[in-house]
Amino acid sequence: MFITLEGPDGSGKSSQIEPLAEYLRQQGFSVITTREPGGTSISNQVRDVLKSMENKSMHPRTEILLFCAARAQLVEEVICPALEKGMIVLSDRYADSTLAYQGYGHGYDLDFLRSLLNFATGGLWPDLTLYLDVDAETGLNRRKSGGGEWNRLDDYALAFHRRVRQGYVELAAQQPQRWVTVDAGQPMQVVQQELRRIVTQRLKK
Amino acid sequence: MFITLEGPDGSGKSSQIEPLAEYLRQQGFSVITTREPGGTSISNQVRDVLKSMENKSMHPRTEILLFCAARAQLVEEVICPALEKGMIVLSDRYADSTLAYQGYGHGYDLDFLRSLLNFATGGLWPDLTLYLDVDAETGLNRRKSGGGEWNRLDDYALAFHRRVRQGYVELAAQQPQRWVTVDAGQPMQVVQQELRRIVTQRLKK
Repeated sequence: MFITLEGPDGSGKSSQIEPLAEYLRQQGFSVITTREPGGTSISNQVRDVLKSMENKSMHPRTEILLFCAARAQLVEEVICPALEKGMIVLSDRYADSTLAYQGYGHGYDLDFLRSLLNFATGGLWPDLTLYLDVDAETGLNRRKSGGGEWNRLDDYALAFHRRVRQGYVELAAQQPQRWVTVDAGQPMQVVQQELRRIVTQRLKK
Repeated sequence: MFITLEGPDGSGKSSQIEPLAEYLRQQGFSVITTREPGGTSISNQVRDVLKSMENKSMHPRTEILLFCAARAQLVEEVICPALEKGMIVLSDRYADSTLAYQGYGHGYDLDFLRSLLNFATGGLWPDLTLYLDVDAETGLNRRKSGGGEWNRLDDYALAFHRRVRQGYVELAAQQPQRWVTVDAGQPMQVVQQELRRIVTQRLKK
């Protein structure tokens, strides 16, 4: 089973993923976690290019292609082999991030992006997407107050982050059988309990 | 005017481009040269990832996306601004390399690649493409005998390089108004004279 965590910056994905993986391991499942962009040696090299403060002149089209390149390698080298072994793969961000950030955020054509993502992923989409919903202001304030290192990607204006959040809400509404929305404005422990409940329920099906 | 040099590895593009640029400058034109992948700080970082011998596990889809990412940045940061100033841009490889290497060489869908390239380049295609034609064996032997550092990309089998060459021949045949083929098996000075003649003729139009 391939499960992704999606949400705006500061929605708490990175803090939630390891406790969720640990819980599933205690239930007897084999679980690996990955993060985007990154997760393989090559993908981490691409991540460094994406995150470097020196690369402020990066064009949004370059950014889209780099995210997709890192993802293509992650799918081939890590995600597909793990799924073939029957493991649960938990990924911190995946293809839907490109739709939310580059499609809804930057206004690139969603149909082209979907064909690009199908190419990059070899057509692999998640079985379940846990969407940690938080409004853009709360998310950005959390980032600023120490929920991770501030980087180039955080510098986009608040208006951009609002479009991203709206994009996530629309994506979740379009595919309710895959997406489950969790209110990430709740305390961390409450969010974690909800995530455990949703995944456990889905694994029983 | 946007002019690209294309051809299989070892066809001599890198040796021909600077003398050609110098000749055009002597004729009074403003000329810049670029190379692919690279040509900007960000694109050079991507080039390092593509060329590193440590990245042998790179999937062809990752490779395609990285080449396109480097190219997107080069177009925005260097090529378009130069063309807007009325300069001649001479590029060592461009989008047609992706069609030849990843399309014909690796067998990826040419229609998808064209839409990907249109996205990466913002729809910018060359006014003139100088195709340095050489058979795969000659090209590879030239590379091995010191025409540049041996790298990961040279390690593909000879059969691959034969498909690449065949791809170039087909691309040149499809757009004869843009492509001009030069026999790169001739001595370097002869090839250079032909390139100068072709470009001069085209600039007079």
